[in-house]
Amino acid sequence: MRLVVALGGNALLKRGEPLTAGNQRANVRHAAGALVDLIKAGHSLIVTHGNGPQVGLLALQSEAGPADGFQPLDVLDAESEGMVGYLIEQEMASLLPDRQFATILTQILVAADDPAFGKPTKPIGPSYSADDARRLAAAHGWSVAQDGRFWRRVVASPRPLEILERSVIALLVDQGTTVICSGGGGIPVIRRRDGSLSGVEAVIDKDFASALLASQLGADMLLLLTDVDAVYTAYGAPEQQRIRRIDPDRFVSRDFPAGSMRPKIEAAIQFAGEPGRAAAIGRLDDAVRILNGTRGTRIAKGAP
Amino acid sequence: MRLVVALGGNALLKRGEPLTAGNQRANVRHAAGALVDLIKAGHSLIVTHGNGPQVGLLALQSEAGPADGFQPLDVLDAESEGMVGYLIEQEMASLLPDRQFATILTQILVAADDPAFGKPTKPIGPSYSADDARRLAAAHGWSVAQDGRFWRRVVASPRPLEILERSVIALLVDQGTTVICSGGGGIPVIRRRDGSLSGVEAVIDKDFASALLASQLGADMLLLLTDVDAVYTAYGAPEQQRIRRIDPDRFVSRDFPAGSMRPKIEAAIQFAGEPGRAAAIGRLDDAVRILNGTRGTRIAKGAP
Repeated sequence: MRLVVALGGNALLKRGEPLTAGNQRANVRHAAGALVDLIKAGHSLIVTHGNGPQVGLLALQSEAGPADGFQPLDVLDAESEGMVGYLIEQEMASLLPDRQFATILTQILVAADDPAFGKPTKPIGPSYSADDARRLAAAHGWSVAQDGRFWRRVVASPRPLEILERSVIALLVDQGTTVICSGGGGIPVIRRRDGSLSGVEAVIDKDFASALLASQLGADMLLLLTDVDAVYTAYGAPEQQRIRRIDPDRFVSRDFPAGSMRPKIEAAIQFAGEPGRAAAIGRLDDAVRILNGTRGTRIAKGAP
Repeated sequence: MRLVVALGGNALLKRGEPLTAGNQRANVRHAAGALVDLIKAGHSLIVTHGNGPQVGLLALQSEAGPADGFQPLDVLDAESEGMVGYLIEQEMASLLPDRQFATILTQILVAADDPAFGKPTKPIGPSYSADDARRLAAAHGWSVAQDGRFWRRVVASPRPLEILERSVIALLVDQGTTVICSGGGGIPVIRRRDGSLSGVEAVIDKDFASALLASQLGADMLLLLTDVDAVYTAYGAPEQQRIRRIDPDRFVSRDFPAGSMRPKIEAAIQFAGEPGRAAAIGRLDDAVRILNGTRGTRIAKGAP
C-alpha cells in the first residue's frame, strides 16, 4: 500500500520533554524504527511530521540572538523542515542503507482571503509573560492570546489548497523513493496577482496538510500517529471506550469535544470520505498493528 | 547545457551586510533573477549555495537561546539548507510559475579517517573574545583559533566522497525539475561499520561539493559565481590582469596565492580536468555572459 504517515509532535518528542539535540535524536531514532517496520512490511511511505516544539525553539533562538537576525515564521518553518527532515532521513537511511530517501522542502498554497486570517487562533512558539507578549506583539506585529497563566503568539490556520512540490514528490514516490515532506504542515504561501509567491506567517494544520497530500498522491491510507493509542469516547473519564472504526458517513462531530484528537478525526474523515481509501489514528509504536486492524481507530466508509 | 551553478556566500549576501531577513530576501531575489536568465537561455540548472553567514547566525541564535536547546553543527547545516533553499526556490518559482522546482536536503559522505579531521582549519560561525572562545571550546569540545583580533571556532574540511541523494537529484533533473541542493557544501556524514550514518561537525568546501555533484550528474559545465568578475593575476595590485582561460593541464598553482579564489580554481580544475567539460568563475550578474565567454574566467582543457 502507498501510505502517508504523519508523525505528530508528541510522536517525535515526549510530552514535557525538553527539545535538546539528544532528546530529539533519540525520539527520531525510535520513530525511524517504527517507520522502517512499515517499509519492511512491504509498504511505500511518504512521511510527514509536526514542527511545533522545533519552531518554538527556533523562535526563542531567533529572539535571543542578534536583533537584526530575527527571522519571520515562514523562514523558521523552512529551517524546521531542514532540521527534522534531516534527522528522520538519516535515521531511516541508517536502518535501510540500500534504500533511497529524499527530504523535500514543501510549500503549500493557501488563499490570501482565507477567513482564518481574520481570526488568528493557533498558538505557536514559547509562552510569555503578559508584558513580554505586549512588547513582542508591538515589535513584530503579532497577535497574542492568553493561554493558561501565560501568553502566546497566535497565528491564522488557513486551509491547505495545493502542495507546490506535489509532482516532484509523486515522481520520486513512483520510483520507489521514501519521501519526507510537508513538515510542520508545509510552509504556507499565497500567490499574488502577478503570479509570484509570498510566505505568510500562519500555520497549516499538519493533519489537514497530510490529508491533502494523501489525496493528491493517490495514497491508499493516511496514518496519523501520535502518543495516544486510539480515539476514545469520553477520553480520560472512567467510562472511556476505544473506538475501533468510524464511518465518515455516520460521524457526528458533537460526539467528540474539540481537543487534540478533533483535527485528526476531521482530517481522517476528509481523506477517507472517498471510496477505496482509509485512514487510521493511533500510537507510533503500534503502526504495523494499526494497519492490521488490531490497534488504533480506523476511519473508512462502510465500517461496521 | 546541464549546468551546476554554485552561489557563493558573497553572491547571496553582500560583503559586510548584516544577515537580516530583509537583506537575505533581497539578495536571493536578485540572484534568482540571474539564475532564471540562464533557464530562459535554454539551460538545465542545478543550484548549490554557500551557508557561511547563515550558519554563523544560526550558531549565534543557538548559543543565545535556552541552554538545553543548543544544536550541533550538522543540525544547523540542515536548518540552513531549509532556510536558504526555501528562499531560492520561492524566488525562482515566483519568476517562472509554470516550472517545477525542488529543494533537496543533501548529505555528503566523507571518510571518518580523512586527514583533515586531525587539523581543523576552517573558521565557522561568529567571532569571539579570547575568554568566550575558551569557555565555548570547553563547553562544547570545540577547536578554536585566532582570526585577526578575535577568535573563531575552527572545524575540519574533509573531502566529499559521495552525495547520498545523488540518484534522487539526477532523476528530478532528468525530468526537467530545477533542483536546489548541496547547500553549504552538503551536510557531512560518515558511515559507521554497521552501515549507519552519523553527522559530523565539519564543513565540506562548497565548491568541491559542487564539482563532485557536477561530475556525478554528468553536467556539461560548473559555474562558480561570486562577487568578483574573474580570476586575476596579482589580484588587487595595479598590474592585475583578468585571466580569460585556464588550461587544467598547464595550471601552476603557485601562480595563485592561497585565498578566496584558490579553492574555486582547484574545484574548477577538478571538474574540468576531464575532456568535454568546462568550468567558469565569475560574477553572479554576468552569468549569461560568462557562458558566452565574454566575461569571467573559463577553465577547460585545450584552452588557448
